[in-house]
Amino acid sequence: MSSILIRSVEWQGRPTDLFIEGNTIARIAETIDAPGADTVIDGRGKALIPGLINAHTHAAMTLFRGYGDDMPLMQWLEQAIWPNEAKLTHEDVYWGAKLACVEMLRSGTTTFFDMYHKLDATAEAVQEMGLRAVLCEACFDHFRPEEAERSRRHITRRYATPPPYGPRVRYALGPHAIYTVSGELLQWSADFARDHDTLIHLHLAETTVETEQCLARFGQTPVRYLHSLGILSPRLVIAHGLYVDEEEIRILADHGVKVVHNPASNMKLASGYRFHFDEMRAAGITVGLGTDGCSSSNNLDMVEAMKLASLLGKSWRGDPEAVTCDAIFHTATAAGADILGLRAGRIAEGYLADLCLIDLRQPAFAPNHNFISNLVYAANGSCVDTVICDGRVLMCDKHVPGEEEIMERASRAAYDLMRRGGKQA
Amino acid sequence: MSSILIRSVEWQGRPTDLFIEGNTIARIAETIDAPGADTVIDGRGKALIPGLINAHTHAAMTLFRGYGDDMPLMQWLEQAIWPNEAKLTHEDVYWGAKLACVEMLRSGTTTFFDMYHKLDATAEAVQEMGLRAVLCEACFDHFRPEEAERSRRHITRRYATPPPYGPRVRYALGPHAIYTVSGELLQWSADFARDHDTLIHLHLAETTVETEQCLARFGQTPVRYLHSLGILSPRLVIAHGLYVDEEEIRILADHGVKVVHNPASNMKLASGYRFHFDEMRAAGITVGLGTDGCSSSNNLDMVEAMKLASLLGKSWRGDPEAVTCDAIFHTATAAGADILGLRAGRIAEGYLADLCLIDLRQPAFAPNHNFISNLVYAANGSCVDTVICDGRVLMCDKHVPGEEEIMERASRAAYDLMRRGGKQA
Ligand SMILES: [Zn+2]
Ligand SMILES: [Zn+2]
Repeated sequence: MSSILIRSVEWQGRPTDLFIEGNTIARIAETIDAPGADTVIDGRGKALIPGLINAHTHAAMTLFRGYGDDMPLMQWLEQAIWPNEAKLTHEDVYWGAKLACVEMLRSGTTTFFDMYHKLDATAEAVQEMGLRAVLCEACFDHFRPEEAERSRRHITRRYATPPPYGPRVRYALGPHAIYTVSGELLQWSADFARDHDTLIHLHLAETTVETEQCLARFGQTPVRYLHSLGILSPRLVIAHGLYVDEEEIRILADHGVKVVHNPASNMKLASGYRFHFDEMRAAGITVGLGTDGCSSSNNLDMVEAMKLASLLGKSWRGDPEAVTCDAIFHTATAAGADILGLRAGRIAEGYLADLCLIDLRQPAFAPNHNFISNLVYAANGSCVDTVICDGRVLMCDKHVPGEEEIMERASRAAYDLMRRGGKQA
Repeated sequence: MSSILIRSVEWQGRPTDLFIEGNTIARIAETIDAPGADTVIDGRGKALIPGLINAHTHAAMTLFRGYGDDMPLMQWLEQAIWPNEAKLTHEDVYWGAKLACVEMLRSGTTTFFDMYHKLDATAEAVQEMGLRAVLCEACFDHFRPEEAERSRRHITRRYATPPPYGPRVRYALGPHAIYTVSGELLQWSADFARDHDTLIHLHLAETTVETEQCLARFGQTPVRYLHSLGILSPRLVIAHGLYVDEEEIRILADHGVKVVHNPASNMKLASGYRFHFDEMRAAGITVGLGTDGCSSSNNLDMVEAMKLASLLGKSWRGDPEAVTCDAIFHTATAAGADILGLRAGRIAEGYLADLCLIDLRQPAFAPNHNFISNLVYAANGSCVDTVICDGRVLMCDKHVPGEEEIMERASRAAYDLMRRGGKQA
């Protein structure tokens, strides 16, 4: 079992030693004597935080970064995204996901919750890059029974055997949204998730159009529709949840449903801005934070996502005390781990050794009256110096091994994808 | 006259050579033969942009970064800020401003428009650090004739002689706001600015409270009040301008008044979010971009400010086509230069050599379908590799000479300031 000793790192305002054995935080103390440690990291001038947890993304969409911005949503989807997604190969998704892993590591994310196509390609990328991920194959039936049947067969086959990728990669079900997946398939998915002990991830209540269509089609708002289908449960993780009223917040809380806020995507696509962060948390909902895909966010920087969530929350409600930096930091760490059922997101003995060291020798931390405030409000992802996941050092000195080649290969894959056949934006 | 040759830098999608003589861009071409250049910079893997222009800040407030966040505005001002500002020495402001210069250079800002106390200390810092700045001494009379008289004497003395700091440092008048400065002193300042050919900088229409008090006190909204005082002119630069109606936008445009948007500060202090960016530009107003002081923003990163402005503008109006990346990039460069009356903010022969090289070898620029989109939506200030201002290299390889000592000294000044006497947050 390999071990890492981090010496004299700032934690809770004091220089601290931390000892990692295998993939676990074994000890935290003022000084630790560990002469046999395989790796010793000098933590001076650095601060310790848990690895950030991106609770909603579409990793391989790095390929679409900056491809079709400032466009109306449907035009963007129909002209820029869907025709190109239809052409995606396993290789494309693999390189897109590897680029996403590089980007996440560089900005302090150790774990992500992904929904996309060609799950195996993303799984391979994660496996190689050393992060932790829960992966959903995006699933649709467009209200057609034959597509629903294909989805059920696909999911059944996929989950017949455990993921062949080692313990850092887990599966979950990913019915895309209530406007692309029938109630029958949603119910089947919920049953399947219960029987196979997996999470179920769904976009919900993201836009006014979705809410209006739901009202027109099913005679109720999105959360109430899911409730009537009987699929609200602690296994359900919904992304967005912008359009929910007070009673719906209570319904979600009563059923233990988790909600993931994606401020950059909601703002950039102009989906809405009234995310009820403080009310949801007060009601007892576990709220996570995500970036959504790079096609709409346009990066995977969870440090930036924390600032956006906090500033957006304060601004729309006219309350500078809303969405405090401490609350949003908890959301991006411990709450994300709770959503994914991981013993992570906290610096404590017995927890997974998923950690970042933050470089304090930069203007964002000068002066350092309040470290969490500086991290959330002044810094960005570039403050991350070292990343450890599952007890392995994945980045040190702000450099991920192989990152140059990955950026190069993923960029080439993206350019090739846009060029070959299909409609273009 | 010293010269710099930048070789093979990406500009407008092509590798380009750029030759700087003295403080001016002398030539731009595919290849330039300049065997006698004093400095040659390898631009491969980098892209060229004009230096960013922070059109509203309080530089030395870096000292207050992270000191009293998530507080109601008045409590924050009365407990955290004002008691400490009252204790500020020349030395404190000097180190705070030097830290601000380091932070601005590291995130690509070459020029800023500042309003603060102890102007000479900021001027010295700017002079030494090599940036360009227009500096206003914050001026108040709190509606007391004896304070107004003191202000007039102070301004008259200050402007009797040109700034002794060289051509990169200019002065402007800085009456703080309509709730701290009487109409008489505003009118006197406007006359003085006209007679001495300077700009006049003022916080205006920042909060609903300001607007309500203005209505109660003067019977009209802030812009109309300034109009009735007869002080609207092309010399006037207002910071914020959140609370303006359609007619007021026309009044501002008709008088050539400039407006500076400060999205981070407006969001974090919950001042408001409905900045009418597109309407103001359509009306012909020159709109600039600022960070405001680090006490409310909490950094001086203009790359981040571009993203915030664009995302905020799209989100509150529910329009993904609002505040495009190209428009906000223009705002942070050419428009800022126009506001300050500088032949800068553009890459063109005959313009000031105030430039940045952007490091393209990072995830934010992979793939690089659209450079401006990636800069605004995906990157942050850490993408800046090299900064040139007034024909001098102020940063290369992401390192500003002396930055470690400046961060250290400024942090110490901040801690000492909070400790010595006065009320504490
Ligand atoms: Zn999504
Ligand atoms: Zn200000």
